[in-house]
This record gives sequence, C-alpha cells and structure tokens, in this order.
Amino acid sequence: MEDGIKKLAIIIQYTGGKMEGVLTGLIGLVYVLYLINFVIKHKIKKDKTKEVTHLIKTGARAYLHSQYTLVLVFVVIVTAILWLTSGWGIALAFASGSLLSAISGYIGMEVATSANGRTAEAASDSVKKALRIAFSAGSVMGLTVVSLGLIGLSIVYMYLSSHLGVNAALQSIIGFGFGASAMALFARVGGGIYTKAADVGADLVGKVEKGIPEDDPRNPAVIADNVGDNVGDVAGMGADLFESYVDSIISAMILAFVGFGVEGIPIPIRIASIGLIASIIGTQLVHTKGARIKDLLWGLRRGFIAAILIVVVISFLLFDQSTAIAVTIGCLTGLIIGFSTEYYTSPNYPSTKFVAKAAKDGAGINVIAGLSVGMKSTIIPVIIIVIALVLATKVAGVYGVALAAVGMLSTLGVTLASDAYGPVADNAGGIAKMAGLGTRTRKRTDVLDALGNTTAAVGKGFAIGSAALTSLALITVFIQNTGLNVSEFSLGDPFVVSGIILGAMMPFAFSSSIIKSVGKTAEKIVEEVRRQFKRKSILKGKGKPDYERCVRIASTHAVKEMIYPGALAILVPIIVGFVLGVKSLAGLLIGATSTGFLMAVFMANAGGTWDNAKKMIEKGLFGGPGSEAHKSAVIGDTVGDPLKDSSGPSLNILIKLMSIVALVIIRFIV
Amino acid sequence: MEDGIKKLAIIIQYTGGKMEGVLTGLIGLVYVLYLINFVIKHKIKKDKTKEVTHLIKTGARAYLHSQYTLVLVFVVIVTAILWLTSGWGIALAFASGSLLSAISGYIGMEVATSANGRTAEAASDSVKKALRIAFSAGSVMGLTVVSLGLIGLSIVYMYLSSHLGVNAALQSIIGFGFGASAMALFARVGGGIYTKAADVGADLVGKVEKGIPEDDPRNPAVIADNVGDNVGDVAGMGADLFESYVDSIISAMILAFVGFGVEGIPIPIRIASIGLIASIIGTQLVHTKGARIKDLLWGLRRGFIAAILIVVVISFLLFDQSTAIAVTIGCLTGLIIGFSTEYYTSPNYPSTKFVAKAAKDGAGINVIAGLSVGMKSTIIPVIIIVIALVLATKVAGVYGVALAAVGMLSTLGVTLASDAYGPVADNAGGIAKMAGLGTRTRKRTDVLDALGNTTAAVGKGFAIGSAALTSLALITVFIQNTGLNVSEFSLGDPFVVSGIILGAMMPFAFSSSIIKSVGKTAEKIVEEVRRQFKRKSILKGKGKPDYERCVRIASTHAVKEMIYPGALAILVPIIVGFVLGVKSLAGLLIGATSTGFLMAVFMANAGGTWDNAKKMIEKGLFGGPGSEAHKSAVIGDTVGDPLKDSSGPSLNILIKLMSIVALVIIRFIV
Repeated sequence: MEDGIKKLAIIIQYTGGKMEGVLTGLIGLVYVLYLINFVIKHKIKKDKTKEVTHLIKTGARAYLHSQYTLVLVFVVIVTAILWLTSGWGIALAFASGSLLSAISGYIGMEVATSANGRTAEAASDSVKKALRIAFSAGSVMGLTVVSLGLIGLSIVYMYLSSHLGVNAALQSIIGFGFGASAMALFARVGGGIYTKAADVGADLVGKVEKGIPEDDPRNPAVIADNVGDNVGDVAGMGADLFESYVDSIISAMILAFVGFGVEGIPIPIRIASIGLIASIIGTQLVHTKGARIKDLLWGLRRGFIAAILIVVVISFLLFDQSTAIAVTIGCLTGLIIGFSTEYYTSPNYPSTKFVAKAAKDGAGINVIAGLSVGMKSTIIPVIIIVIALVLATKVAGVYGVALAAVGMLSTLGVTLASDAYGPVADNAGGIAKMAGLGTRTRKRTDVLDALGNTTAAVGKGFAIGSAALTSLALITVFIQNTGLNVSEFSLGDPFVVSGIILGAMMPFAFSSSIIKSVGKTAEKIVEEVRRQFKRKSILKGKGKPDYERCVRIASTHAVKEMIYPGALAILVPIIVGFVLGVKSLAGLLIGATSTGFLMAVFMANAGGTWDNAKKMIEKGLFGGPGSEAHKSAVIGDTVGDPLKDSSGPSLNILIKLMSIVALVIIRFIV
Repeated sequence: MEDGIKKLAIIIQYTGGKMEGVLTGLIGLVYVLYLINFVIKHKIKKDKTKEVTHLIKTGARAYLHSQYTLVLVFVVIVTAILWLTSGWGIALAFASGSLLSAISGYIGMEVATSANGRTAEAASDSVKKALRIAFSAGSVMGLTVVSLGLIGLSIVYMYLSSHLGVNAALQSIIGFGFGASAMALFARVGGGIYTKAADVGADLVGKVEKGIPEDDPRNPAVIADNVGDNVGDVAGMGADLFESYVDSIISAMILAFVGFGVEGIPIPIRIASIGLIASIIGTQLVHTKGARIKDLLWGLRRGFIAAILIVVVISFLLFDQSTAIAVTIGCLTGLIIGFSTEYYTSPNYPSTKFVAKAAKDGAGINVIAGLSVGMKSTIIPVIIIVIALVLATKVAGVYGVALAAVGMLSTLGVTLASDAYGPVADNAGGIAKMAGLGTRTRKRTDVLDALGNTTAAVGKGFAIGSAALTSLALITVFIQNTGLNVSEFSLGDPFVVSGIILGAMMPFAFSSSIIKSVGKTAEKIVEEVRRQFKRKSILKGKGKPDYERCVRIASTHAVKEMIYPGALAILVPIIVGFVLGVKSLAGLLIGATSTGFLMAVFMANAGGTWDNAKKMIEKGLFGGPGSEAHKSAVIGDTVGDPLKDSSGPSLNILIKLMSIVALVIIRFIV
C-alpha cells in the first residue's frame, strides 16, 4: 500500500502538468468521434457511389496493408536494435511513436475515403452541406494527429521519467520522434511515389493514348489514381505533420529542461494543449453562407485565424513574455510562409499569370518560366525563417526556435484539417463523375475542389516551414547533446564545411531518386493499363476493368521503390557521423536543412504554378482547352507533378529524419 | 645613385621569386603572339566567308563595346570608392585586375572570331588542319588569361609591397581579385544572357515559326546567335576562369604568409608559373593523326593530361611533400569533376540514353528525366570536393584548400584552350553552312563540333569545381581576416545559421532573375526578327536582313538585364554584413558556395544531358528528326539551354564574387 502511494507520488512529481496533454488529447479524441459520427450518419444513397467508394476504400486499405507490412518489419528490427544498443526506454518510445502515427494515418484515411462519396452526394443538395462533410473528414485527420501525438508523448514521457528519471527520459523520448519520422518516411515518400505514379500511369494511357477523359471509369487505373490522393495527400501529409508536431515538442522539452530545469518541461506540452483546444474551436467556426469561392475561402480561413489568435492571447496571459513572443513568432511564420506559397501559385497573382502567358510561346518556355517562378518564390520564406530564427533566439535563447516551432504547430489540428479537406473534395469530384451525379453536382464539387487547391497551397507552405523550424530545433538539441562546446562547430573547420556541402547534396540525391522511382512505378502501371485495354470490351465500357490489379501494382512498387531513398536518409547521417565525425554530422544537418528547405519551397511552388497556369488556360485563357498554349501547359504540369507531390514533400521528411537519426546515434559517436 | 640601388634592393627583397611570374608570363605572351600569327597567316579565301567573318567580328566588337562602356562606368566608380575608403593600393589593384581581365577577353574574342572562318575553310582541306587552327585560337584565350593574370598579379603585388609593405600589400591585392570578379560578372552574366537570348530569339521565329533551318543566312538573328557563342563561351568563360585563377593565387599567397611568413608568398606564384610552362608544352602536344572522334578526343586530352603530369612531378621535386600533395589533390579534383560531367552528359553513357528514351513518352517525361539526372550528377562532384577539402587540410592546414585550388588552376592555359576551342569549331560549322562550303566540309566541322561539345562538358565541370575550391579558399581568408577566433563562427550561433540559409537562397534568387532576363531579352529579339520577316523579300533570300540591329538589341538588353542580378551579388553580402554582422556574412558565403556549387553542377549537367539526348535522336534514334520523340527532346533542350549556358555558369561568378566582396568590406564590419 505504502509502496503504491510512493509510486503515485513519484509519478505525480514527474508528470508536473503533463496530464494536461493527456486530458486535452482525450477531449480531442472525443470530438473526433463526434466528427466521425457526423460523417458516417450521412448514408450513401446511390449504388454507383457506394460501389466507387467501396473500391477506393478497398484500394486505400490495400495500399496501407503493403505499407504497414513493410513498416512492421522495419519497426521490429529498429526496436530490437535500439533496445540492445540504447536501452528499453528509447525502444519503447520508438515503437509507440511509429504505432501512434500509423493509427492516426489509418483513421484519417478511413474517414477520408468514407467522406469522398458522401461529399459528392451532399453536393447534390448544397455546397454548404458538402463543405461541412468534407471539412469534418479533414478535421478528423487533423485532430487525430494532434490528439494521439499529445497523448502518446505525454504518457510515454511520464512512464519513462517515473522509471528512468527525467534526464534519461528526455533522451529516450527522442525515440518517439524517431518512430514518428520512420512512419512518416514510409507514408510520405511511399505515398508520394504512389500518388504520382498512379496519376501519371492513368493519364498517360487513358488521356494521352486513348483520348478518354480524366476520372473515366473505363480506365483501369482510375481507382488507383483516386486512392493515391488519399494515400499521398491525406495519410502522407498527416504522418509528415505528426512528425513535425511531436519532434518540435520533444526538442522544446529538452531545451526547456536545459534552460530551466524540470519546471520547464511541461511548458511545450501546455502550449500544444492550448493549441488543441483552440483548433477544436477553430474547426467549429468553419462554415459558409455563400457558395462563391471567396465566401468559402473566408469560411475556412476564419477557422485557423481564430485558432491562432486564441493561442497567442492565452500564451500572453499564461506564460512569461519571452515564451509568448516566441510562440507568436512561430504562429506568424507559418501563416506568412503559407500565404507566400499561395501568392506564387494562385491564378489571382502575377506569377502564375506569367507562367500561363509563357505557355503561348511553347512548352519549353512554359517550363522555364515555372522554374524561374519557383526559384524566386524561395526568397520570402527564407527571409521569414531567418527573421523567426534571429528574433526567437533573441527573446528566448537557443530554446526560442523550438518554442516557435511548437507555437507554429500548436494549431495544427485546424491547419491540417483545411489541408486534408482538399483531397476529399477532389475525390468527391471524381466520384461525382464516375457515379454520374450530374453537371450541377459536378460544378459544385469543382468549386470545392478549387477551394481545396488554394488551401493545399497554404498547407504545403505550412508543412515545409514547420519541417524547417522543427529540424532547426532538433539540430539545436543535437549540438547540445554532443556535450561539446558550440565553438567546436566552427565554419573554420573543414570537417564542418564538408558536412555542410554533403548536406546540401542530400536533397538533390534524394529528390533524384524519388523522381526516378515515380517514373519506374508509373511505367509498371502503364504496362498494366495497356494490357487491360487490349481487351476491347473495356474501352467500349462493356467489360469491367480490373481496378484491384492496378492498385496492387502501384502499392507493391511504391513501397519497394521507397526503400532506396529511405535508406539514403537514414544511412548517410550514420556514415558521416562515424566516418567524418560529429562536426561533419552537425554540418550535414545544417546543409541538408537549408538546401532541403529551399528545394522543397522551389518544387512545391514551381509545381503549383504550372498546375494553376494549366487550369487558367483550361478555363479559356489563350485559346482554352486543346489550344497550343494548353498543350504546353499540360507539359509544364506533367513536369511539376512529381516535384510538387512526390519529391518536394518528401524533402520535409528528409531533413527531419536526418536530424533525428543524428540525435539517436549521437551517444555512439561522441 | 645610392638611393636607386637601395630602392632596387628593397624591391628585390620584396619580390623574392615573384619575378618568375613575370618571366613565365612573358614567355606565355610570346607564345600567344606566335599562335595568333599562326591563325592569321591562313588567309580567308572565299568572299562569302570573309563577309560572314566580318559580320561576326563586328557583332562581337559591338557587344564588347556596350559591355565595356558599362564596365568602365562601374570600374571608375568602384575605384574611386575604394580609393576614398580603403586607400590607393586596393584601388590600383582593382583597376588593374579588371583592366587585365578585359584585355584578355578582348584578345581571346578577337582571335576566336578571326579563327571561325579560317577553321571552316581549313576543314575543306583536312580535319587535322582545322583542328590545329581552332585549337590555336582556343590556346590564345587560355594562355592570354594565365599570362596576363600572372604578370599583372606579380607586378601589382611587387609594386604594392615595395610601397606599402607586405601586410598591406596582401590586403590590397585582394582588390585585384575583386577587379577580376567584377569583370567576370559583366562578361559571364551579360554574355550568358546574350548568348541564350540570341539563340532562343533566332530559333523561335526562324526554326519554329518560319520553318527555316538553323544557321540560315536569311534569319536576321543568325549573326547575333553566332556572336553569342563567342561572347558567352569564349569571353565569358575566359573571364570566369581569369577570376578563379587570380583569386586562388591571391588566397594562397595570403594564407601562405599567415602560415610561413614572407617566404611562403612566392610559392603559389611559382606553382602557377610551372603550370604555365606545362600548359604551353601541353598545347604543343595537341594534334591528331586520325579523323575519328576518338582520335581527336585523345589528341586533345593528351595535352592537358601531360600538363598535369608535369605540374605534379615538378611540384614533388621542388616543394615540400605537403605542398606537392595539396597541388596534386587539386589537379585530380579538376580532372575527376570534369570527367564526371562528361559521364552524365555524354551520349555514350547510360544517363543521357535514359533521358533520350524518356523523350519517347513525351516532353514532360523527358524534362523530368533530365532533372533527375542533373540532380543525381551532383553526387560525385560533391564527394570529390569534400575529399579534396579534407585531405588538403590534413596535409597542409587551412592553407591546403587554397594550394589545391592553385594546383587545379595551374594548368588552366591548356584546359581553357580545349574549352574555348569548342565555340570556334561550333561557329566554323555555322559559317561553313552560311558560306556554302559544301557537305564534306560541313561533315568535318560537325565532327569538330561534336568534339567541342565533349570538351565543353569537361571544361564546364572544371570551371564549376575551380569556382567552388576558389570560393572556399577565399572564405578561409575571410575568416582569417576577420581577426576573430574561428570558434566564433559556430553552427550553434543563430546568426551563422541564418547566414547559411540566406546563402543557400542566393543561387535560387540569382538564377531566377537571370532566367527571366534571358526571356526578356529573347522577347526583344523575337519582336525584331518578326518585324524584319514582314518584309517578304528577306524570307525569299532576296533582301538582306539587318543583322546589326539584332546584334545591337541583344547587346544593349543583355547588358541592361545584367544589372539586377549583378547588384544582388554585390549588395547582399554588404547588407548582410552590416545588418546581421560578420558571423552571418561568413555563413552567407558558405551557404551560397555549397548550394551554388550544387545548383551549378545540376544546371550544367541537366542542360548537357537534354542537349545530347536531342542530338542522339537527331542522329536517328527513336524515329529520328521530326518524330514525336524528337519534338519532346527539343523541348527538353529548350529548357536546358538557359540553365546550362546562362544561369548555371553565372553561379560560378556569384559564389566567388560574394566571397571577394565580403573580403573587401571586412575592415568596415569588424
């Protein structure tokens, strides 16, 4: 009895406020259940919708199955290695981190695939209703990520600290981040390869060779293509941001402990808790009165702007000024980078107009124009990150960057919701077409889709910015954890400089291999679609295409193709660390983060501007569909697709994963 | 009398071996006169060849005139500013550096434009004779650059040291490098914009709109296009490498003084002197027996491999082991990076075959394949630079990198010769067509042109590698000259990290603006060509097109468009230095050099692989000219052109210029 009380006392002593994380996380999960119920209670009416929904759902599950099988092997092996080399604490944390990320992805994707068809049918009634369903599905993804992240992190930390003490617990909790990173690698990189390979595979034979429209049910790869949107943009994005979320909190906890001792540790979790509640409130504020894109956009934005305001105000009330300022800096950084992405890729601003106009002079000129815009679009995000870095450090020391990252990601529940909403709306459009729901419905889903494209742009910028800040925070922890004096990591040291140059190379090597993987996987799908089209009945709409086969091919190859770039991201820091030493390793991380951030912005925005330039022309500009300008714009879009949906987003994973791998192996190098 | 002797004694004391530089430089110049005489003594026979040669020569002069007018204004202003703020020494050095670079460029281009027509006519006799003339013209460029560089540097340094003392002289001689950099900025960036704008302008209306072949004399922009090859690839490349050459020697002199006192200073000049003589011997070894591309290639390669061997052997005989090893490392680095460029861009190796094959699947896939190859091709150069950096530092301390750079550039006389040979052969082909010299001649010039493309690839890699090593050497000097402890420049400092991120952004911002400049200038030429084609007689071959007007438009716009990127390269280090401080400035330089090096390799190789993939298809692969694959490959080539000929090479200038600007302003920041 006494023993029990003693244990409880120790636990309470070490938890110091971390229960907040568990509590708010539970509130979040309850709200998620409410949202799931809201989505599910809209029954699907038409048989055709049911059938397509079923196909997409089964396809998505098939992909997750392949992915998780491979992940399981990887997680088991790494858990064992960690256990043997670094103790049970970090091994447990690693397994929990990857498991929770996997569960988040699974839930998010299940609900998203359920919502696709429901959104399509709801659009027959009204835009308002359809938005509500699609956004609820997005919110499930957003809030599951933050709730499970927060609960998992809090509980695992509390457990570790009560058994190992604070110091060892903080070192072990890095494993949780590593687990999240590993899962994100599979989900984001594999998902990125899947989504583009399926897209290219479907289009290349369907649209280009056979001249049948997009989303045509005769195309055997059409379901794989739709599955891809869920796989890449919902589950992939979710895992990416789950990783940023927990990594930023972990770095902040460690740096808070270094700066302020045990009292500092709960602060980051408290900020995240506030953000979670603010996000719930934010998602509640998302609704629309009008059906114009402007009304809808404002309907969505109201949500996350309100959430940010709540976090900022409460931070100033609860925390000391320096913490509150650092949190505010983070919130603003996310916002500005997001909007700058929108500025460079939206058809309403000069850059995309410039790219569309260039299409008149041919495909080559269109591609060059997009490259130029993409490169230019890096300027604002870099300046913003630099300002954030300098200011946050000025107000809160080395701890500042991590705090800013936590602040930025605190409202992730609602920002990720607006982001995951996009593919749901996109697929609703596809289903509306496949299920023959009529032109009016299709027009409404088009409006929702256009809205999704805008929010996706902002979301992408946000994901990239958060990856960069998180990685910088992790690097700060890394340098801290080497135990060396910071002065050792000097630009005057050739090993540091070598590391930076090698790091700058990583995004190039990584992107190149991912682009190649997309091509190889797409090739397999092209072969399969061609093979099926040889049966004439399919093209005539009489025979049923074998959708599952395409899904299976895309799944197995995407997962297989992911191994090489994944190994690159994990092994290079290890090799550099052991061969060139800890200084080079620090350089490697900084080099990879800087260039990776730049390349990620460049690829996302170049891809976005080509995509929207094409859409502008499809709406009638410069001769409209079928014109020479349109053909050129389609080529630009083809170039941009793997950049913006596969290699670009994968760079977020690369920079965080390398940093966390470095953190995990540090004890063996120093 | 006694006074005179005393002065002489002081001069001799300070010159300590630098007279070698002057002497070997003079030998180089005598040899250059011999080569010029060799080229000129072949009289041009056909009137048509004379006319075209005259047009190209006048066009090239017109461009140099516009460029030098602007340069003059710039040089006068900067000289005055330097004089007022930093003393007469650095101002004098600056003026000398820019003047000598300008003279080298002028001589190189004069001889190249004289050799174009002569090579074409010599090709009627034999490939052997044509190669001899074209290569002699290339050697003029190569040896003028190194001779004038070496003489100028030696004399200016001797003069400064006898008047200001060693310390101040070493600080002031940086001005010489700054002068060379400023000139290179105008020549390489302006030239890069000119050459691609003229090319695109000529092709877009001529080939695409009107369907007339390349190099057709009816095209009003055809002369501008030919001038562009000389302007960008001869004068631009020359100025770029003049800059690398003197900058590397200057950094080595400064670091040698830091390490070994006054005795160290002459070593770098001595290495360069050995290299100059070795280069002369190397150029003499260039001749061919057979007329197959393999024989020709070996004929050229023999030259620079011999030169490198001579330098390495003599270094081991004359210097201590560590110096000799560092020099050898530099020589090998240049060679390997050069060959890796060839590997990734040559039609004989898998990468370019892969890109050509991708053209079968459409332009988009072709572009993506090229991007992927370009990114992948960064891996070897980065690993080589890192090995060089680590090994050179290991054997010779901080001084090692500068020594390696000097070693690498010591044989510049012959490497630049093989490189400048390319555009001469290319233009000879154009002239053979325009002057109607017959199919057999044309076939021979084609072989020479193909050879030129291969050497150009190696030369490009060499230029990029040398820029990176030189910039790293300059950064070492920079950190040294801040007078701060190297430990101040720590990756743990947010100002250093901010600098690195901002630096990583520079190549993106710079490239974007250059690509845009090419587009704008090309547009002006397109307008002019269209305007002239409205006179029907021109297209019928009866009226004479107004070539001069196109040349003038290209000249004025290229020079004008160069101002913004130039200002970016010069002002950003100044702003960062004064606003964020010296630590950020060091970070900026490292970030820009790392990412700039990567981007330069990426752009050069992506552009090269698209270009050669197109050529493979034009030779009959995948359907040959006119096929769908060919159309796709042409689009890939259009995308690659500004990357490989304008923005890519300009990055060499960017990274060196930023470093040298930082060195010049350092006294005002610390």
